[in-house]
Amino acid sequence: MRSGRRRERVLKVSRISGNAAQALEKFRELARRIRQYEEILGVVYWDMRTGAPRKGIGHRSEAVGALSDEVFRLMVSDEMGELLAALTEEETLRELGRIDRRLVEEMKKEYDRKKKIPPELNREYVVLTTKAEAVWEEAKARSDFASFAPYLEQIVDYTRRFVELWGVKGTPYDTLLDLYEPDLTVADCDRLFGELKARLVPLLEAIMDSPHQPDTSFLKGTFDAGAQKRFSLFILREMGFDFEGGRLDESVHPFAIGLGPGDVRITTRYLPDDVVSALFGTIHEGGHALYEQNFAPELAGTHLADGASMAVHESQSRLWENMVGRSLAFWRRYFPVLKNHFPGAFEGVTPEAFYRAINVVRPSLIRIEADELTYNLHIMIRYELEKKLFNEGLSVRDLPEAWNAAYRETLGVEPRSDGEGVLQDVHWSGGAFGYFPSYSLGNMYAAQIMRAARRHLPDLDGLIEAGKLLPLKEWLTEHVHRHGKLLRPAELIRAISGEPLGSACLCDYLETKYREIYRL
Amino acid sequence: MRSGRRRERVLKVSRISGNAAQALEKFRELARRIRQYEEILGVVYWDMRTGAPRKGIGHRSEAVGALSDEVFRLMVSDEMGELLAALTEEETLRELGRIDRRLVEEMKKEYDRKKKIPPELNREYVVLTTKAEAVWEEAKARSDFASFAPYLEQIVDYTRRFVELWGVKGTPYDTLLDLYEPDLTVADCDRLFGELKARLVPLLEAIMDSPHQPDTSFLKGTFDAGAQKRFSLFILREMGFDFEGGRLDESVHPFAIGLGPGDVRITTRYLPDDVVSALFGTIHEGGHALYEQNFAPELAGTHLADGASMAVHESQSRLWENMVGRSLAFWRRYFPVLKNHFPGAFEGVTPEAFYRAINVVRPSLIRIEADELTYNLHIMIRYELEKKLFNEGLSVRDLPEAWNAAYRETLGVEPRSDGEGVLQDVHWSGGAFGYFPSYSLGNMYAAQIMRAARRHLPDLDGLIEAGKLLPLKEWLTEHVHRHGKLLRPAELIRAISGEPLGSACLCDYLETKYREIYRL
Repeated sequence: MRSGRRRERVLKVSRISGNAAQALEKFRELARRIRQYEEILGVVYWDMRTGAPRKGIGHRSEAVGALSDEVFRLMVSDEMGELLAALTEEETLRELGRIDRRLVEEMKKEYDRKKKIPPELNREYVVLTTKAEAVWEEAKARSDFASFAPYLEQIVDYTRRFVELWGVKGTPYDTLLDLYEPDLTVADCDRLFGELKARLVPLLEAIMDSPHQPDTSFLKGTFDAGAQKRFSLFILREMGFDFEGGRLDESVHPFAIGLGPGDVRITTRYLPDDVVSALFGTIHEGGHALYEQNFAPELAGTHLADGASMAVHESQSRLWENMVGRSLAFWRRYFPVLKNHFPGAFEGVTPEAFYRAINVVRPSLIRIEADELTYNLHIMIRYELEKKLFNEGLSVRDLPEAWNAAYRETLGVEPRSDGEGVLQDVHWSGGAFGYFPSYSLGNMYAAQIMRAARRHLPDLDGLIEAGKLLPLKEWLTEHVHRHGKLLRPAELIRAISGEPLGSACLCDYLETKYREIYRL
Repeated sequence: MRSGRRRERVLKVSRISGNAAQALEKFRELARRIRQYEEILGVVYWDMRTGAPRKGIGHRSEAVGALSDEVFRLMVSDEMGELLAALTEEETLRELGRIDRRLVEEMKKEYDRKKKIPPELNREYVVLTTKAEAVWEEAKARSDFASFAPYLEQIVDYTRRFVELWGVKGTPYDTLLDLYEPDLTVADCDRLFGELKARLVPLLEAIMDSPHQPDTSFLKGTFDAGAQKRFSLFILREMGFDFEGGRLDESVHPFAIGLGPGDVRITTRYLPDDVVSALFGTIHEGGHALYEQNFAPELAGTHLADGASMAVHESQSRLWENMVGRSLAFWRRYFPVLKNHFPGAFEGVTPEAFYRAINVVRPSLIRIEADELTYNLHIMIRYELEKKLFNEGLSVRDLPEAWNAAYRETLGVEPRSDGEGVLQDVHWSGGAFGYFPSYSLGNMYAAQIMRAARRHLPDLDGLIEAGKLLPLKEWLTEHVHRHGKLLRPAELIRAISGEPLGSACLCDYLETKYREIYRL
């Protein structure tokens, strides 16, 4: 299909000339510089979390602040405003190549968003949230919501003002959702989460009533950190992680970070009494990393070398962690390898028994420790509360009670203290309202993408069981990774599955999996 | 002495007001921002040399280039020019506090130096030297001077033009020396190196003729890298390196880098067949690090948080590496510890025998492998050649012959190829002419500082032999480290020793040490 390919290349190139061409050149340069500074800030962020000397952190934070200010300044500069104005003139925009057009759109959105917040207000907000995160950490440790409440109230107030300044889309919370998942509305979310709840709550009840509870006793023990690390690195290699273009380190909270083409880093944390925590952390972040390592080369160095959205990014980590890493096919292949890493630890345990153990479902209080099924219920609780905060006038001081009631009602458990309740997540102290839904949407994307992958790779389980993870990785690269932010999430999922995002695939997947495990 | 202290504090504060005070505030802010960017660039530099994924290096270099350009732009900006003009008005300068005045002086010097080079010329030169370093690496590997010569010729030409633009001080090479050691002249250098040569060459001859050559056979073997690392970390701790404000990593070429207050990092390299290479690398870089970790807090975040000069910085690494780390007192204490780290490796070897072995003198071809004594002769050869290049019209194509003749004459050895001759050092490929003398000047500073330290710590050898390295470290902090760049090198050495820099202390020290070792 040579001619077809040639045509595609021509379409990619912008056909403008004269002033517009000059503006495009300058715009690319400016956007590139912003991106380069962001990547450098990324290196410093990584360093601060993986081993920078404690005593230098305060000073370094100020340096990071200075360069971040410069990034902000460039982003909202008159130059940026003028270039975007020139390039978004209808005639010019139409003549831009795909990449340039999309880049202009994205930068325009970001420019408008930042420009609408008065710099002074933004500075106050940054100071507030920086302070609030430290206060939150203290408050969580002491289970003292009262000390955090005044900060949270202020953060909510600022956020309400920002929403006003950005413009209310439908409802105020719609504006916040759009920050993380472009074009996602409260109506969409209500529908998707409603469907999910309607199928998952009965499933959970059936699971709880099942007499076939997995034996998890062999997951407890002491597991050498060196062996955990070797096994994690081995699995990462099996997944196709490129170690010449990335690395695995340790940090208190695992994360993945793309620092530009050829440099994607992930971290995990080795717990001596937990054989799978570091591994699933590694696979999860590894899923994010595969996305970042496989953007199309022509997106390199642009803001389009990024996930299509927070939720799509999350779909890649969850697909690998849960749908591959917690599958029976996976453990049929890799359980013997795991056993070799921990001699004597799993005597008499079969791959099937191990698989059932790592998929045990238990309603619990802490989101980040939740199993694959109830995790979604933790997210829905947060979604409902955020919606009430911004759309229905719930006040911050009534949050703990609302939180506890929701856990009682949805999961049948109740926090003994706010530390294991409303204070458990860092997100609100940083003002990240609208972020939580991405996690469950990520599960939905993952299930829908996985269903499409199975159509193209009919014997996927057979491949996985044969230790061949690369065909899946390559399929994902072709259909998800390489596009980066070039496609919008809605375009991407339609291109892959022929449908808009729905809840059905996730529900089908979870029902099938857990009915088998719990023999329902 | 309370009143005295109060007076000192008052003197530190600038007494200006009105416009000048405003200019000072803006100047401090601008200088601080430049410094912050430089520190961030330092983090990226460290990262690129200690483990950044290979595939990201090219892209990262471009990002570093972009931020470096911004630093340059800020440094030569009209704003900087105007602020410096305002602050260097005689009346204002007089009223500035010590720190501000010195900072203004230093920034003015840097501003003038950078401003005098047309940006285009500078850009050409950066491109040239970047290219040249890669060419040099190839040329060195193939011992092919001819392929590097055209680049070196161009670099020398550019350097000559820069000297013209900066202004010739006495001779062109004076201008280059001043880049690394402020106020050092060719006349100074000729005298110091002349004196050094007059005493070291006869010493070397006597050593070569001595029948008492140390036995070095037990230095060969295989030495576990893990044990080397543990021992290096142990010694670093003994020296008073602050691990909460720094770290030790690995890199191909060891280095030390100060990344701001509370963050000073060093690297070393563990060679499996050499028990002391990594250790002396660690001690050497540790000496640099102690300097950087102990600047006075009031210099933090300014350009005065730096060594007084390249040579003074080098004095700290060489003092620790050679005068402490290669002393008999040190090994009387630490040889048993070393033996514990390598069970069975040094059976029957006494601390004295080990001390003699690690101090063996052998005229050789490679500077970085040279012993403490002949090292200075390697430097003098380079000094003489650079002086001839810039002051006496030596042409680049005649360099190899001149190099070989100098080695034959001074050290009695001759390179078999240019790879182990004129091509061995990276410096010239980066245009660092005038840099080499710092190494030997560092030895002179070290010896003169050490003599002063011994006056204040009369039983220094006893302390070292008792494993008490901290009194020396504290003395150095008080007399050298804390001043940073606040004192000029000449002021610093006079304050410490009551005299200007001389060669006598170094010669005395080397003669005493080696006469004892070689029983002369």
